[in-house]
Amino acid sequence: MIIIKIGGGRDVNLKGVVQDLATLTERFIIVHGANAVRDEIAAKMGYPTRSVTSVSGYASVLSDEKAIDAIMMGYAGIQNKRLVELCQQRGINAVGLSGIDGKLVQGSRNKGIRVRQNEKTIMMRDFSGKPKQINQELIALLLDHGYVPVICIPIIDENNVAINSENDDIVAVLQETLHADTVIQLIEAPGFMDDIKDDNSLVPSITRAELDAREAQVEGRMKRKMLALKKLMENGAARVIIGDGRVDHPVQDALSGKGTIIQ
Amino acid sequence: MIIIKIGGGRDVNLKGVVQDLATLTERFIIVHGANAVRDEIAAKMGYPTRSVTSVSGYASVLSDEKAIDAIMMGYAGIQNKRLVELCQQRGINAVGLSGIDGKLVQGSRNKGIRVRQNEKTIMMRDFSGKPKQINQELIALLLDHGYVPVICIPIIDENNVAINSENDDIVAVLQETLHADTVIQLIEAPGFMDDIKDDNSLVPSITRAELDAREAQVEGRMKRKMLALKKLMENGAARVIIGDGRVDHPVQDALSGKGTIIQ
Repeated sequence: MIIIKIGGGRDVNLKGVVQDLATLTERFIIVHGANAVRDEIAAKMGYPTRSVTSVSGYASVLSDEKAIDAIMMGYAGIQNKRLVELCQQRGINAVGLSGIDGKLVQGSRNKGIRVRQNEKTIMMRDFSGKPKQINQELIALLLDHGYVPVICIPIIDENNVAINSENDDIVAVLQETLHADTVIQLIEAPGFMDDIKDDNSLVPSITRAELDAREAQVEGRMKRKMLALKKLMENGAARVIIGDGRVDHPVQDALSGKGTIIQ
Repeated sequence: MIIIKIGGGRDVNLKGVVQDLATLTERFIIVHGANAVRDEIAAKMGYPTRSVTSVSGYASVLSDEKAIDAIMMGYAGIQNKRLVELCQQRGINAVGLSGIDGKLVQGSRNKGIRVRQNEKTIMMRDFSGKPKQINQELIALLLDHGYVPVICIPIIDENNVAINSENDDIVAVLQETLHADTVIQLIEAPGFMDDIKDDNSLVPSITRAELDAREAQVEGRMKRKMLALKKLMENGAARVIIGDGRVDHPVQDALSGKGTIIQ
């Protein structure tokens, strides 16, 4: 089993990804982002995406009710359905699902984000949270009958409310349950870069032991990503490949050793 | 089995509908609209919904690529997911699906709409078509495992392209396959009105024989609806109830004999 995580940037070559996936003989599921599309929709709808940085230094999107609407439109709406359409055109019988459909991804809502505002630390509570559990029965039901789940946010919280969540965390919980051999993460970069400004600084491989050091090295969203990678390895992935989603054959390239391999 | 078709107007009481559905003991599936939400999104995104009237007098939405994007955002995105969320909050384990997911609703794309333009009759081809077939296996798979399908456009054409389609036609094809005893259509009116401008002109019942006469009586979209109703009856529905979606208990009221019953 392979878990394919497709980043939500504008330049990810979705056609190329799907074309590659159609040639896989192993079972796979897809988790996709849509932040570029979401941000465009939110801005045009008149409620632009807002970010906050917590006192502990993690940046995240502030997910009020309108932001969840934008997620539904951008992720579960246009990005999910256009991706399912591409899959169908390549003979992959995709079924697009958000985490609330059949309670596919169940989480617990955050108590609040501690942020500094006017020199005070306040708690801001939004509709976001951490995924905790997967509806494994539904995923198995679909896979066993030849359907490929194409999964995105929102997820569902303990009170059955739609909430935002980090895709890296969703992939980690999926991995915990499904025990994929390989997790492929397709991003808008050649892989993990030692220096984000230097195109020649690709790190071809990272050992589990090195992940801690790397985590200390990076900031913001990338810090979250490193934590999520550590969790993936703890949850039994034999290898995680961070590959370039912008090339002609993003999945083939990743599987043939391009990008960054963590094992 | 009951098929519930929920109209896509602003004033349909979705909470009330879902609350009623949670009390049903019979199996049911949901087909929903979202035209009000879709139109709002399309306008704000800068590509407002356009309508054309064919030379034979049927009005329909002109579905270019951007219109399909708006359908994905409005129907499969926000309306479908908010409805699934409401269902989950009432203990209905809903799974939202568009017609392209698992090829749930397969159709054939229209050759074009014959319209009059500058005193000439021209063919306008868009991304719209007629539903022809249902993936019955997928619906059964979900129902048999306790999931309630919540279905919306787009549907998928013979070349695996996402296309727009009339919900009335989708319901008719679902009925042809699933043989529901009862089809409930919830709209923004007390039922079928003899005079659309007269609130007291509700027609409490229509016989199959009367449907032909009614079809001649009405125009535009309503004409399509009458044709679809005839098809439903031909496809073995014991009764079709057109009920008010705006009241406190839309489904209970419809089942208790309010609205218009066709049988």
